Amino acid sequence: MASAATDTVSARPTPALKDELDIVIPTIRNLDFLEMWRPFFQPYHLIIVQDGDPTKIIKVPSGFDYELYNRNDINKILGPKASCISFKDSACRCFGYMVSKKKYIYTIDDDCFVANDPSGKPINALEQHIKNLLSPSTPFFFNTLYDPYADGADFVRGYPFSLREGIPTAVSHGLWLNIPDYDAPTQLVKPLERNKRYVDAVLTIPKGTLFPMCGMNLAFDRDLIGPAMYFGLMGDGQPIGRYDDMWAGWCVKVICDHLGLGVKTGLPYIWHSKASNPFVNLRKEYKGIFWQEEIIPFFQTAVLPKDCTTVQKCYIELSKQVKEKLGKVDPYFDKLADAMVTWIDAWDELNSSSGAARLPNGRSK
Amino acid sequence: MASAATDTVSARPTPALKDELDIVIPTIRNLDFLEMWRPFFQPYHLIIVQDGDPTKIIKVPSGFDYELYNRNDINKILGPKASCISFKDSACRCFGYMVSKKKYIYTIDDDCFVANDPSGKPINALEQHIKNLLSPSTPFFFNTLYDPYADGADFVRGYPFSLREGIPTAVSHGLWLNIPDYDAPTQLVKPLERNKRYVDAVLTIPKGTLFPMCGMNLAFDRDLIGPAMYFGLMGDGQPIGRYDDMWAGWCVKVICDHLGLGVKTGLPYIWHSKASNPFVNLRKEYKGIFWQEEIIPFFQTAVLPKDCTTVQKCYIELSKQVKEKLGKVDPYFDKLADAMVTWIDAWDELNSSSGAARLPNGRSK
Repeated sequence: MASAATDTVSARPTPALKDELDIVIPTIRNLDFLEMWRPFFQPYHLIIVQDGDPTKIIKVPSGFDYELYNRNDINKILGPKASCISFKDSACRCFGYMVSKKKYIYTIDDDCFVANDPSGKPINALEQHIKNLLSPSTPFFFNTLYDPYADGADFVRGYPFSLREGIPTAVSHGLWLNIPDYDAPTQLVKPLERNKRYVDAVLTIPKGTLFPMCGMNLAFDRDLIGPAMYFGLMGDGQPIGRYDDMWAGWCVKVICDHLGLGVKTGLPYIWHSKASNPFVNLRKEYKGIFWQEEIIPFFQTAVLPKDCTTVQKCYIELSKQVKEKLGKVDPYFDKLADAMVTWIDAWDELNSSSGAARLPNGRSK
Repeated sequence: MASAATDTVSARPTPALKDELDIVIPTIRNLDFLEMWRPFFQPYHLIIVQDGDPTKIIKVPSGFDYELYNRNDINKILGPKASCISFKDSACRCFGYMVSKKKYIYTIDDDCFVANDPSGKPINALEQHIKNLLSPSTPFFFNTLYDPYADGADFVRGYPFSLREGIPTAVSHGLWLNIPDYDAPTQLVKPLERNKRYVDAVLTIPKGTLFPMCGMNLAFDRDLIGPAMYFGLMGDGQPIGRYDDMWAGWCVKVICDHLGLGVKTGLPYIWHSKASNPFVNLRKEYKGIFWQEEIIPFFQTAVLPKDCTTVQKCYIELSKQVKEKLGKVDPYFDKLADAMVTWIDAWDELNSSSGAARLPNGRSK
């Protein structure tokens, strides 16, 4: 089967952005799930971030081009700055964003499989994300026929012509069929709910509107927004989990709005195979459920000064505001604000010309 | 066929809001299109607003309960205030909103037919609009699985619990398969484009975001937002056409945002049968194409004071701002601002207890 899949790949035209996109996968287990993705992922380079016990051997199906980092690698590469990378939480994936040298990142969870569209055809999620990233966003006015750049669509009557060029897209947020991305209370109340609704649309999230960004099936332009894709301090030693992607999404959206970058959501779907344990999730989430009631108004009203002209400057400014305004909510936010600064330091170190020379330090295939 | 359709209707359970919703149809021709809608519309009362030559007889298929107003009726009922109702433009439909005594309005163009969903089933557009209006809106935070109140859907992880009750829905904006609602330049460039994409979603337009509201397939809560549903001065004697619904949409959205009311867009679809003539449309639209570049920033930055606590107060305040800020763009906006005030006067007159006694003055079946 692997060889049949390989044949399929070799018969295809070169996929888009083959040398400009890394796929980042956080994991604690063997990556058998890649077999199903082989026709779509094999042409790309993978960055695997191994969470938990670094002595465990993670098996990667043959034929994939990858580098793998475990906790020892992260500690070695970042030194004391490794403190900003979460442990025992999929938030560790953002280390992969940092060590990538590519313009685009796609990140996916290892319990996500290829979904089918309503006609039964397997969905090439990555191809749709690339379409989303390479076409503009329209956050300043809502288009009622959704993505105006999609085939067979356009801007409708009443859409200002001056806004039809759009702005660059920084983020493409994909969705999930089968197991929806619910919080623990909703999981507990609706254990059997499955997402069966295939919504054939991509849309720009309007300027000034926040959204819950899920890290399960997410692509972004690293050059445009990478340094804001920090998944925070979660998991081991932290009072909270499962808010890593949410935190990143709130920061990213505020910074994209400030810098004039677009965020899209909708297609593509992946098949999310397995609901996580709602009791475990509740323990991880319960502080977040309180805190988000304060965090969201904070981000909704956050204003970045005009001299914040780079993602890094925006992010450092945001870290100051987090410390000042959310520090009162819980001391955790002081720690998180410090980690945001450390993250930017580490990002700049690895992504300067001298820092780049230190890489790759992971074990490459 | 008519009697078969009637049997179908009688076999159904009483449809929702039967005595609380009027269907408003502007027309210049016989209403044969109602035959196709019979199973869905026959239980409801129709308000037909006849545009153009009032001596022309408009035929309405038998079995429908309706009242019909032509220009003579409008002039008789409103007297000098009839000047605020457009002539030779479908903007005249808003007269129907004013004379209705029901809580809900559905308005549809007479070139719109019943669409089929992807399974081939005819779509009961009105039923979906009623669902949309009777369930809350969520304009303060975006839900990535779209309408959280739809069957099989909910709020996703990271959605603040304090916002999950939503707010009342004032407007349900439906879409169109086949002929998309394009402006004249887009029609000219893409004469063959058809909308074939059935997007199975309803979503709340976020607070602070404007959208192009199309009057072809539109429902609203008259008690909540009726006085803002003024379709402006268009057509005969005016320098502009085809911006009636857009104007209403911009005013409505600003007022809904101010008063804490929701606006939804998406399902249901109708089948839009016939593209209007793009050359005629261009003549009607071309000033609007310039003006919307100024109108939209105006509405995007319009702020209503706190003491505007009713739709009427909001609308009068908006008329002042239109005069002050858009009057500079063209003298037309002075005239429009005055007409906005006349509209509210007429609305209040017809909708006060004494005004109500004067109605119906149309020719009822």
